[in-house]
Amino acid sequence: MAKIAVLGYGVVGSGTVEVFYKNKENLEKKAGEPLDIKYILDVRDFPDSPYSDKFVKDFDVILNDPEVSVVSEVIGGIKPAYDFVKSSLEAGKSVVTSNKELVASKGAELLKIAKEKNVNFFFEASVGGGIPIIRPIHTCLEANQIDDIAGILNGTTNFILTKMIRDGMGFDEALKIAQELGYAERNPTADVEGIDACRKICILASLVFGKHVYPDSVHTEGITKVTLEDVEYIDSYDSKIKLIGCAQRHGDEILIGVFPAVIRNESQLAGVSDVFNAILVHGDATGDVVFYGKGAGKLPTASAVVSDIVSAVKHRGTSRSLTWNDSDQSFVRPFDEFVCANYIRVSSNDVKTAKNTVVKLFGEKTEFLSSKKQPENELAFITEARSEKEIKELCGKLSADASVLGRIRVLDY
Amino acid sequence: MAKIAVLGYGVVGSGTVEVFYKNKENLEKKAGEPLDIKYILDVRDFPDSPYSDKFVKDFDVILNDPEVSVVSEVIGGIKPAYDFVKSSLEAGKSVVTSNKELVASKGAELLKIAKEKNVNFFFEASVGGGIPIIRPIHTCLEANQIDDIAGILNGTTNFILTKMIRDGMGFDEALKIAQELGYAERNPTADVEGIDACRKICILASLVFGKHVYPDSVHTEGITKVTLEDVEYIDSYDSKIKLIGCAQRHGDEILIGVFPAVIRNESQLAGVSDVFNAILVHGDATGDVVFYGKGAGKLPTASAVVSDIVSAVKHRGTSRSLTWNDSDQSFVRPFDEFVCANYIRVSSNDVKTAKNTVVKLFGEKTEFLSSKKQPENELAFITEARSEKEIKELCGKLSADASVLGRIRVLDY
Repeated sequence: MAKIAVLGYGVVGSGTVEVFYKNKENLEKKAGEPLDIKYILDVRDFPDSPYSDKFVKDFDVILNDPEVSVVSEVIGGIKPAYDFVKSSLEAGKSVVTSNKELVASKGAELLKIAKEKNVNFFFEASVGGGIPIIRPIHTCLEANQIDDIAGILNGTTNFILTKMIRDGMGFDEALKIAQELGYAERNPTADVEGIDACRKICILASLVFGKHVYPDSVHTEGITKVTLEDVEYIDSYDSKIKLIGCAQRHGDEILIGVFPAVIRNESQLAGVSDVFNAILVHGDATGDVVFYGKGAGKLPTASAVVSDIVSAVKHRGTSRSLTWNDSDQSFVRPFDEFVCANYIRVSSNDVKTAKNTVVKLFGEKTEFLSSKKQPENELAFITEARSEKEIKELCGKLSADASVLGRIRVLDY
Repeated sequence: MAKIAVLGYGVVGSGTVEVFYKNKENLEKKAGEPLDIKYILDVRDFPDSPYSDKFVKDFDVILNDPEVSVVSEVIGGIKPAYDFVKSSLEAGKSVVTSNKELVASKGAELLKIAKEKNVNFFFEASVGGGIPIIRPIHTCLEANQIDDIAGILNGTTNFILTKMIRDGMGFDEALKIAQELGYAERNPTADVEGIDACRKICILASLVFGKHVYPDSVHTEGITKVTLEDVEYIDSYDSKIKLIGCAQRHGDEILIGVFPAVIRNESQLAGVSDVFNAILVHGDATGDVVFYGKGAGKLPTASAVVSDIVSAVKHRGTSRSLTWNDSDQSFVRPFDEFVCANYIRVSSNDVKTAKNTVVKLFGEKTEFLSSKKQPENELAFITEARSEKEIKELCGKLSADASVLGRIRVLDY
């Protein structure tokens, strides 16, 4: 019999308990032994819950109970989750978590403790919600060298961009609807500024490249500067704007970033709309593999947590966690070296001169776009692939003849 | 040190050896011990191969060598693969295979032997080539009850359909190109008649529902009857024709089939073109999850085989294979009970009367389609969802006023 503790009875926590008891019989078959949730930790009271007898407010009750072999942390954030997870691992309990902030900022340290204590630290739910991605990369694609990983990692921003693209709705209005539907928080900063996507690409990159990438090392832009004008031009380019987190291998180093990107409609990533997520992994042998599904939500995330619980029980006594090492971040190249084509929108009082300057600066292959509502004093164009540094320099030179209204990188996935 | 034998040095076999030695160092890290391929079994000679010292022609050399703990069967077909796999398992060796025909027809028996001998029988490469699908379903989605699984499981037919859809090319011409490019065999029956897709949906259904589904129990249609006329009408319906294998849970029973299907363009499956495969899995908690990638080819398939080899080494001494039980097939419902909308194309000398009859028989909600090249004596329409049995009866009644030229089921994934 394996006893489990669930830390936090919010959306994911209550979902975890629900999914666990709904599928208990089947899960026990897969775990190979009886399972039960012994404790649920929450500061609040739930007197009407069918699990009211399991609630505790003092984490030490769980920590000091040797019967508890698996702790499921679904509180989120760093405090107090980090202390709870760390002391659970140190006490020889396996931990499963959906907490991307924790894994992105403390993963290397926690994985090291898990290894030393011969227990597991699993976090399938931290990226892609219910989409299996961490374990498939770890166990199924191991015969590949993964060169590139890119994903639509945040459902809230994808929902907002979908509203802008499909319904011609402005950013603010789309955000409001996302908030009304419960997809966006009242303070939407972590989503719309790309912080959530950044944590997730950090976890994926650490996993793929074997060294911890910290969020501070990642060039991160959100979608707040994307306008309906951009959406229209890019529609005419047979493409869609998506918030992408990506990490590319360059020898022993990587380039990594989170930013809105122009994605051609034929890409598997362009068809990912609403709150869905998709992650594209490029392996040297297997080519592109894409994982698609609901990246958030109570039951999808809970189902990933519960799968990890079963794995932790099944592998008790062995440390099957993937591992990556801590790193001084010197393997993360400056983002100025990132090379891609760019969509640029400018305005100018003298469009003809501006157009000549654009061609002179960005080359003959520059592709000019047009949109139905294009003002007479506006130009939009797609550059050839250039480094971030070059593009910035060229935009600087362009500013003599035109002012840059917007720039979005064009990715080729 | 784990010693491996590779049976068969064809496309997948030579790819397996190539991927193995290319990533050997990394694989050993993951397996936790040194690895080597000790034997390669093939009837042919390869004197110029860098691995020429490993070739043997007599399977008994491998079978009787206690050093060999993992056998990788990549010969394909039933004879002699079945005997080799069975005797390897009986001798206490784990087996990994890419052989869908073998798994679809003998899976239950071979899994049982593996269990009894406490060894593993893995077959990730048998479905979806390099796309991780078997293990993710088995280990990552286990907190879900999977209700429905549907996929584009055959790259050759998807390539042919893509040529028909994108380039307006006829079936025969598209098949010829597929053959020239090496995507289709000289005898293309197994692909174009749906037999290959059938084997794969059998494997997936057996895995998901826990009971072996044999190919003979599965209603199987290929794509040879799909015409360019159908492609055009269905394009006007904002949809694409795809060869789909699907299995649905209905209580303790299932409905399963392989057939060309109309898929709406907004579906993730509609965007899967050329030789790509995609598998959609619907879990009760996680919703739709889609796995997408190259479903065949030397290196993708080999990379899945090599991943299984590493897993087999890592789990030596324990039987971690998924399992399903043999079955008398009584849980497979008659395909006549399959319910869906249908696209039907008819011709009639009296189109007006025929149209009235269609509405009378199929109901007011019947949606008529039109295409640019539509002949005057032709009608094409989409029915409401009805059982296979009803549709067939209604088509029989319709034949008084019109002759049915084609019928394609409409699926809602």
